[in-house]
Amino acid sequence: MNSGARLIGIGVGPGDPGLVTLNAIAALKAADVVAHFAKEGNTSKARTIAAPHLKPGVEELPLLYPVTTELPKQGAAYRQALGAFYDGAAESIAARLDQGRVVAVIAEGDPLFYGSYMHLHVRLAARYPTEIVAGVTGMSGCWSAVGTPIAQGDDVFTVLPATMPQFELERRLADTDAAVVMKIGRHLPKVRRALDRAGRLDRAIYVERGTMANAAIMKLTDKLDTAAPYFAMVLVPGWEGRP
Amino acid sequence: MNSGARLIGIGVGPGDPGLVTLNAIAALKAADVVAHFAKEGNTSKARTIAAPHLKPGVEELPLLYPVTTELPKQGAAYRQALGAFYDGAAESIAARLDQGRVVAVIAEGDPLFYGSYMHLHVRLAARYPTEIVAGVTGMSGCWSAVGTPIAQGDDVFTVLPATMPQFELERRLADTDAAVVMKIGRHLPKVRRALDRAGRLDRAIYVERGTMANAAIMKLTDKLDTAAPYFAMVLVPGWEGRP
Repeated sequence: MNSGARLIGIGVGPGDPGLVTLNAIAALKAADVVAHFAKEGNTSKARTIAAPHLKPGVEELPLLYPVTTELPKQGAAYRQALGAFYDGAAESIAARLDQGRVVAVIAEGDPLFYGSYMHLHVRLAARYPTEIVAGVTGMSGCWSAVGTPIAQGDDVFTVLPATMPQFELERRLADTDAAVVMKIGRHLPKVRRALDRAGRLDRAIYVERGTMANAAIMKLTDKLDTAAPYFAMVLVPGWEGRP
Repeated sequence: MNSGARLIGIGVGPGDPGLVTLNAIAALKAADVVAHFAKEGNTSKARTIAAPHLKPGVEELPLLYPVTTELPKQGAAYRQALGAFYDGAAESIAARLDQGRVVAVIAEGDPLFYGSYMHLHVRLAARYPTEIVAGVTGMSGCWSAVGTPIAQGDDVFTVLPATMPQFELERRLADTDAAVVMKIGRHLPKVRRALDRAGRLDRAIYVERGTMANAAIMKLTDKLDTAAPYFAMVLVPGWEGRP
């Protein structure tokens, strides 16, 4: 019997433990099982954020990404390895739901906005009652830490992955009022060139670990091209025509 | 003396009182004055969300938008009326900050993402210590209520105001993986035509009052063009190539 079974995707916000919502805390209290994604040998950041709210003795289910560093990311082998991983993770969760338990999957930021949770959601939502607890996104955490209005009024706002080709970044940066460029990492020099050519470099802000105590925030023109973490972001504030 | 003076922009989330964060609650407890925007005769939605967390006896400062219905929105008179209103609101707040008090401005959603708070922020942040509490956005609340993954991996995600011309909406909808179209209101027929011509109508979802008990969620193809509120949204989920 699985009358109480429920899958909950819980957004725990961008990192600051104070950016957890009341609904997230209540859902963590209701959960019999708490699942979290992590890389082998790493602690899940979502797990760290949620830690103060976990029930004593709750079952934890770490979902460890397969090591795929040797596979090209656009290739079929990579997609197949990841697909098999998500299939397996979904079945581990389904086994617990079939026992009538409440399974929470915790996600950094918002569960349905660029998060791994959604791979489980699409595999399970048709089979089990499902609930989503929206969270504060990483990008909101970043522009709040900077204290810069990002978009207003009739602004067009665009989220761009830094992985795209330079000409594509450039075209899109020139065609939006406000933007967030994500997944900076080794793409920083390219992102800088694209912003420069799009005429948007002057207002761009570089943010690392936006809501952590050791955040690094600076004008992109002051940031060296040496090293940037994968999760760094570049903010391009819109709202040029302020009343 | 104003050593304790501080301006705090607090995001209280999209409507569900459970989507308030711990930081928002702590900031409300710290505030000597709580300011909120509203239209004359209406209660501020942010005020309703924050109500359970207001200190007894806290000073409330309602900021009432001027009535500008007779002015064209692109015109100088409209911009001037609004500018004068924001100037006056900022001075009311500055007077309290000059007394060394902590003034919180509560905002639906996230304070720096399409919110009125930022008009005060740009007028006051250079003069007083300022802090932002990021919030869950209205759009996160909507896609969470629907339970639809919105963007993943290397998706481009775009926020578009429904106010733009149809050809512009159409061009941008055809050029993004995922989108949210905001401020639907009387623009619904135009948004539908643009989505249809961009080949994106089938996946579009119409959402009204996304995180309220009386939410209306349906495929856009099932929604009639009769009436839509200004704050309704249309979601266009991305993530076509799921692994």
